[in-house]
Amino acid sequence: MELFFLGTGSGVPSKDRNVSSLVLRLLEERGTTWVFDCGEATQHQILHTNVRPRRIEKIFITHLHGDHIYGLPGLLSSRSFQGGQTPVTVYGPKGLKEYIEVSLRVSGTRLKYPITIKEITEGMLFEDEQFRVEAIKLAHGLDSFGYVIQEKDKLGELLPAKLKELGIQPGPLYQIIKSQNETTLDDGRTIYREEVTGPSKKGRKLAILGDTRYLPALNSKIKEADVLVHEATFAGEEEAMAHDYFHSTITQAATLAKNANVSTLLLNHLSARYHGEELERLQREAQEIFPNTTLAYDFYLHPIPSRP
Amino acid sequence: MELFFLGTGSGVPSKDRNVSSLVLRLLEERGTTWVFDCGEATQHQILHTNVRPRRIEKIFITHLHGDHIYGLPGLLSSRSFQGGQTPVTVYGPKGLKEYIEVSLRVSGTRLKYPITIKEITEGMLFEDEQFRVEAIKLAHGLDSFGYVIQEKDKLGELLPAKLKELGIQPGPLYQIIKSQNETTLDDGRTIYREEVTGPSKKGRKLAILGDTRYLPALNSKIKEADVLVHEATFAGEEEAMAHDYFHSTITQAATLAKNANVSTLLLNHLSARYHGEELERLQREAQEIFPNTTLAYDFYLHPIPSRP
Repeated sequence: MELFFLGTGSGVPSKDRNVSSLVLRLLEERGTTWVFDCGEATQHQILHTNVRPRRIEKIFITHLHGDHIYGLPGLLSSRSFQGGQTPVTVYGPKGLKEYIEVSLRVSGTRLKYPITIKEITEGMLFEDEQFRVEAIKLAHGLDSFGYVIQEKDKLGELLPAKLKELGIQPGPLYQIIKSQNETTLDDGRTIYREEVTGPSKKGRKLAILGDTRYLPALNSKIKEADVLVHEATFAGEEEAMAHDYFHSTITQAATLAKNANVSTLLLNHLSARYHGEELERLQREAQEIFPNTTLAYDFYLHPIPSRP
Repeated sequence: MELFFLGTGSGVPSKDRNVSSLVLRLLEERGTTWVFDCGEATQHQILHTNVRPRRIEKIFITHLHGDHIYGLPGLLSSRSFQGGQTPVTVYGPKGLKEYIEVSLRVSGTRLKYPITIKEITEGMLFEDEQFRVEAIKLAHGLDSFGYVIQEKDKLGELLPAKLKELGIQPGPLYQIIKSQNETTLDDGRTIYREEVTGPSKKGRKLAILGDTRYLPALNSKIKEADVLVHEATFAGEEEAMAHDYFHSTITQAATLAKNANVSTLLLNHLSARYHGEELERLQREAQEIFPNTTLAYDFYLHPIPSRP
């Protein structure tokens, strides 16, 4: 599991930073990639990586500002052109469906794979045996969401020594025992799974937020996440401006990370007004509040190790 | 007057060539820039040039395929963000208005300059004292147009020696004489402009075509153009494929240029299948038919000198 930042700027592209997009690579976990936001030229950024559009399974749009969506029709079209055939689901605020459908229709684009567009509200979006994804409402000039991705706990491994001790020999029965909480054997004994497996592995938790004003109330939703991705459009001293433009400062993001006791804070959506040493100053400013902070840059790859 | 190619590939962007866009720089002539097609990341290409979005006066879209329009909402938005205030007119086939309006509305974009979107059919689009622009219909999978830009002839300069010979002294009268075919002097004499001016300067003619099958009938419309910009998606031997995909081969484009007796042929919309030496072969193939042929590449600048 890795986060791969494709665009970390805000508003308009610059030579240093493209507009917003990042990729959650789940190749080991499910052989797929999830995309968060898709600013213009996201497909161009992808050309310089080993991200394969055909692997994209889900696209989550935080909000509909152009710097977060104008790359979507192109990415969807090119995925088709390049032979992508598996279904894609796109999640995002109301209006997303009209935007995608009109862009594809007007340009005469017929995708060669099934696409589902889900316009979302706050709450649970998706759940399967591996992951749960919840949308949380942010505070921006138009509907903006964060996505909380909760990996489910993994069962501990069966302990063969323990099973043999109980006189149970290797065979299909092992899988049956692992698949349920309790199993009744032919001889009438009941085997409880937790007695014959090692410790379960806690699932990871990620919170990937869209543009937002500082929102201390998010605390409960993002608590103890392994990674918080938060916007940091402005320097710490620009609180008034951040508020006016519905954005956050870097110190606000760090404060939220600290209060929510997350493990790692990754900052994106940086204003093009900050360069070089100025960015180093911003990073130090954030690290004084929350030491494990990184300012993301385009093509920054952040591995998210399994929990111990 | 210069043509500046921003994207010369076809279909999807590659590392070598972006999708379609080119710019006609009319800085000397009228202080503005006209854009032809606007594939995704055209604004990103512009970042690496001295093209100023605020100078853009007109945008001509040849057809609505994604590789020709997906950069339009981003370019229009960034032009506003960067302080562009002068009006912009966008010309293109039916559907363009819906695409632009939905993209801007859904993304909450309010442009700070007036925009006019003109959905076109074949015929004269625009005329002022300097230029006439006509749309001509091409043959593609969906409505596709070429644009013929005709610069008007410039009057010759007044010849002061000639005027003095006639006893007319320098003064405001000179401008009056230049502004009309004939002028009656106070003493009753009639001065004919053509008798006191040098030779007029022929206006330049450009034909910038969108995607199309080989269309010999274009001949009369593009005849004797200074520059013909023509697509060349396929190599000469791929005529059947070009026909099936509603495109042209490089030799077809060269044949059209030869028959229409244009001065220069510039080829764009090259398939990503052709690289390096292969491209050199294609260029030679075209030059055997029409010697003054250039395969355009991204950031290729082509000056168009005044006619003698």
